[in-house]
Formats: sequence, structure tokens, C-alpha cells
Amino acid sequence: MLNHQFRLAQRPVGFPTHDTFQHTTEEVREIQDGEILVKIQYISLDPAMRGWMNDAKSYIAPVAIGDVMRADTVGEVIASKNPKFAVGDFVNYSFGVQEYGICDGKGVRKLDTSLAPLPVYLGVLGMAGMTGYFGLLETGALKDGETVVVSGAAGAVGLTVGQIAKIKGCKVIGIAGGAEKCKMVVEEFGFDACIDYKSENIKKALRTHAPDGIDVYFDNVGGTILDDVLTHIRKKARIVICGAISQYNNTTAVQGPSNYLSLLVNNARMEGFVIFDFLKQYAQGLEQMGQWVKEGKIKPQMHIAEGFDSFPETLLMLFEGKNTGKLVLKVA
Amino acid sequence: MLNHQFRLAQRPVGFPTHDTFQHTTEEVREIQDGEILVKIQYISLDPAMRGWMNDAKSYIAPVAIGDVMRADTVGEVIASKNPKFAVGDFVNYSFGVQEYGICDGKGVRKLDTSLAPLPVYLGVLGMAGMTGYFGLLETGALKDGETVVVSGAAGAVGLTVGQIAKIKGCKVIGIAGGAEKCKMVVEEFGFDACIDYKSENIKKALRTHAPDGIDVYFDNVGGTILDDVLTHIRKKARIVICGAISQYNNTTAVQGPSNYLSLLVNNARMEGFVIFDFLKQYAQGLEQMGQWVKEGKIKPQMHIAEGFDSFPETLLMLFEGKNTGKLVLKVA
Repeated sequence: MLNHQFRLAQRPVGFPTHDTFQHTTEEVREIQDGEILVKIQYISLDPAMRGWMNDAKSYIAPVAIGDVMRADTVGEVIASKNPKFAVGDFVNYSFGVQEYGICDGKGVRKLDTSLAPLPVYLGVLGMAGMTGYFGLLETGALKDGETVVVSGAAGAVGLTVGQIAKIKGCKVIGIAGGAEKCKMVVEEFGFDACIDYKSENIKKALRTHAPDGIDVYFDNVGGTILDDVLTHIRKKARIVICGAISQYNNTTAVQGPSNYLSLLVNNARMEGFVIFDFLKQYAQGLEQMGQWVKEGKIKPQMHIAEGFDSFPETLLMLFEGKNTGKLVLKVA
Repeated sequence: MLNHQFRLAQRPVGFPTHDTFQHTTEEVREIQDGEILVKIQYISLDPAMRGWMNDAKSYIAPVAIGDVMRADTVGEVIASKNPKFAVGDFVNYSFGVQEYGICDGKGVRKLDTSLAPLPVYLGVLGMAGMTGYFGLLETGALKDGETVVVSGAAGAVGLTVGQIAKIKGCKVIGIAGGAEKCKMVVEEFGFDACIDYKSENIKKALRTHAPDGIDVYFDNVGGTILDDVLTHIRKKARIVICGAISQYNNTTAVQGPSNYLSLLVNNARMEGFVIFDFLKQYAQGLEQMGQWVKEGKIKPQMHIAEGFDSFPETLLMLFEGKNTGKLVLKVA
């Protein structure tokens, strides 16, 4: 049985290209005592993957050259020598960009596909959902009824953040690229407004939609949008730095927020957020999100791309703003 | 009796100059029922004054053109029609840059000159001291034994921060300009080390003095030093944005911290701080600082410049790094 893989061939400068990865194949080996073999069905594509390709000290080691590219996955157990897992179990594990994965079961999460379809466990019931949940409620310290702005609003994390904030009785303003995404965010996901950064003046639109200022800004994009929001925060505002997708493929220095002294005059804070620091609370977050999904209060929005071989191009969709909701690659 | 004043004549672009201010004189008027007349003895000179000259929305209204320049002061009551104040009382009030002040007594603090000399109430027992105290302990959420870095280390706030952190059993590394200041900070104020930003590579020096990284950075300067420190913070570090003196006289945009994504990967935060938001806790802070001064644990360091007329040049000393400790102007 052949396993197809994408390995990191070289560290990209700027956007990843076809040459960034090497497509390899190898025979799936026999599993040993305690191990499971998983047929991977969906691979999670996340902006964070761009950071993992850099040779830099970060919250997680970089992917080594020649290694299978790191990625979260869901799939089905097709062989097991581990008493905790049976053939037919659906599981979640970071197996990377490949078709089959073998591991010893540690850190593998069993999934209940009667609650939600399999790929949703890479979305609102997976890392993206937990990122929105803990980022907004813990790091953002959201209080009921506040005014929340979220960038990357039509992305996996952005949609999660907006929907949770609506559950909490907040006024929610999204920022997204293009009229179509903005329409979807408001009409299908209940945001109060969505600013199209491609056609609107963001500062002006923020003054219109949040006349009293912003309490929480959940930032997925960085760059000029972060600077624009900084001009319009309230006293004791919280800015959650979850990502900076506008800066990940820079070949020059990251654009720092020139307006950061707005934090000073407003006794406000900007706090970074990595989901891996919330693993202890994960179970509680997943239970709450599962409940909200069951009640229809959180709608999972999946963007399913097909074809394992298209991985390099499909990954770029994230940086080109071509996805809406959680982008996953379906393995044929 | 003639009162000499410095009024804001025009809003400076870049550094304030002689033309920024207008020297005026006027007769001191009679006080009315409820009022006091104060002979101002010391005027506080603070980096924040530069911000008050800008016509920008901030934590406090800008000084209006033609108004006496805002400044904190200490002096002696020389006439009183307010039963709460007697002639001979020493008081602290924001009378501005002038020789005499009249007010109705609201917000006026009576001073105990047996505890500390009068100008110290503009230093460690005044706004500078409270800024260091609440900024470090509340906003910085300092824990005993942590590693603390403070820029502007030889300034009024920097010296306060470093001494409080030493009381709390912390390792304290200052950053200051010039060998003399660095020597003073270590030898006279007990800092563990002080980096001379004018001659040392800051990143390298931070790695030497704080090999395990930085827990709290108290920033008075902004600019490249903030960026350098960001490369060396620990998980859950707190950066207190108290000031950005390197940027106050910019004629171009403020330099934003390019390395702000270090907050993300370290689940760290950057929080702004303005002392005016801590007025309710002021009395408690002053009591504790007074106690430490009495016990000799906090040494007030005053930089007393003489001559009311020299106000415009003396103010510039702050931005030229020419003062050590709290800069005040003694009114003849």
C-alpha cells in the first residue's frame, strides 16, 4: 500500500511555491504493538503552517527540511495493535500532509461523527474553533454586550469568534475582503456589520459601525488593518493577536503597528495567543462548542478542496483570501 | 505682585523650541472665598508634557494655545480663604508653568515635609513614583523573583521601577544612555546590570544578563529598544508601555514594533499605562512608597534645575537624556 506525502523541500522566501515541497511516495510499513494505522481523509490547511516553514524560534519547532509537512488531520483507523483503538474509529491527530499515518495513540482524539461530520473536527470542533473560543473568551476577556471587531471574518477562526461574540450578546463587526464574503458574514452568520477592506475606508467604517469605540479586537491579519483599529479602541480595550496573515509572506520586515501608543493613552492591551498554551482547558472548550453546534448556535462553515496532489496550490488559497470558513483538503 | 508664566504659543513640530512658548507676566489677583494662593517652588518636567502640546485625542485634553503650559507643581500656601488650608501649608497641585497659582483647593494634596524634602513629592512621592509603582505592580503584574528590564533606567520612573523590583526580589536590568548613568544605576540604586544603549548591542547584552529571557519589560522609550527587547521575552511576559520618549518629537510616523508577533508566539502581552487611571488607588501607593522612602529602600534621585526663565531649555534635557532622576525646575 503506497503512501503519498508532501515533504518540506526548502524554506520559502515569500509565498510558498511548488518548489517548497517535494511529493514523495513510500510503502506503508507494518504497525507494531501499541500502534494504529490511520487512513487520512481530511487535512487541515492553516495560516500557521507558513510560520512552521521558517527556521525561527517560535512556540513550536520548525518543520525540518525533508520532513513530512506538519498538518492537523482527521481519518479512520484501518489497523490497530492498540487496545484503545478499534478499526473503524474516527480520529484526529497531527499526522501531516500524507495519506496514511502511524502513531502510538498518544494525543489521538476519538471523534463522534454522529454529532458532526468528520471535517468539522478540523473546524469549529478542532483547533480553529478552540482558537476562537479561548482567544476571545480568555485572552480577549470578553464581557457580555461589548463591541467586538474581528478581521479575517470569513475565515475559520473569524467566523467562530463572531458567532461566539453574538451568543454573548455583543455587537460584532467583521472585516473581510470582498462584498461576497461580507454579505455571507452578515446574512448567514449574524454579524451586525462587515467592512470590506478592499473597497471601504476602514477607519471611517469603524466610526460608523462602532461609534463608541471597540472593546475587543481579534486580529488575524496584522498590517494596516491593525493600525486602523488601534485608532478607534476604547479605554481598557483588549487586542488579541492571533495571527498576521498579511505579513506571513513578507520578504521585508513585518510592519509593526505605528499606532501602538493608542494602548498607552487608553490603558489598553495587546496580547498574543497560541492555542497550544490552552491544551489543559481544551476538553471544556470542545464540550461547550459541541453543545452550541448541537443547538444550532454555531454553524460550521467548511471549505473543502479536493485532491491530495493539489496541496501546494490549495494552501495558497489562504493567503490569497480565496477560502470562506475552514479550509481542508479532502484526500481521495 | 507679578506672576511670570510660560504659555503655549504654538504647537511644536518635532522638538519644542523657544518659539513654542510665550513668556507672560500678569498681576496676581485677589483670592476669593474658598480659594488659596500658592507660591510655586518646584515645577515638574515630564516627558508626557510633549504629548499634551499636540492637538490629538488622548487621555487628557491638549493644552490650548495661549494657556499656561500644564505641569505638576509643589509650593507653599501664602494666602487662604479656604478653611482646609492654612498659610504655610505645603501643597501639590497641577498649577502649570508659573510662579503663583490660585485654585479652590479641590484635588490639592497637603505634603508632609518632615518625611521628605518638598521636590521629592514630584518624584518618588508624586506622579513619577506612582507611575513606577502601579505600572510595575498592577499593569506589569510583577511576581517576586522575576527578571525585569526597564528602559530610561536613570530617569525618574526608571529608577523607581528598578528599586521596587529589587524590593520584590527580582533581577533588574536597566537600559540607559552612557557609561556614567549605567554606573550610577548599578552602584547607587542596586540594579543587577545596566546596558548602555549608546555603546552596547542591546540584544546581545540582554542575552548575557537575562539568559532565560525577560518576564517584565517596563518601556519608557519605544523605538528600536522595544523591538530588541521583544526578541528576548519569555512565555507570558508583560510589556508595560509607559512611554516612548524616542518617538515623541518625531516629525514622521511613530516607529511601530516590528517584532510584535513575539507577543503571539509567547502568549505575552503589551499593555498601556496612564497613571490617571489609578487615582483611586493613589493613597495606598503613596503610603507604601512613603514607607519605603522612610526605610531607605527607595532613594529619591532629584535633578534640580534652577531658574524659572530657563523652562524651555530645561524641558529639552528630558529628550536629550541629560537628566538623571526626577527633573524639576526650581522657581527662584
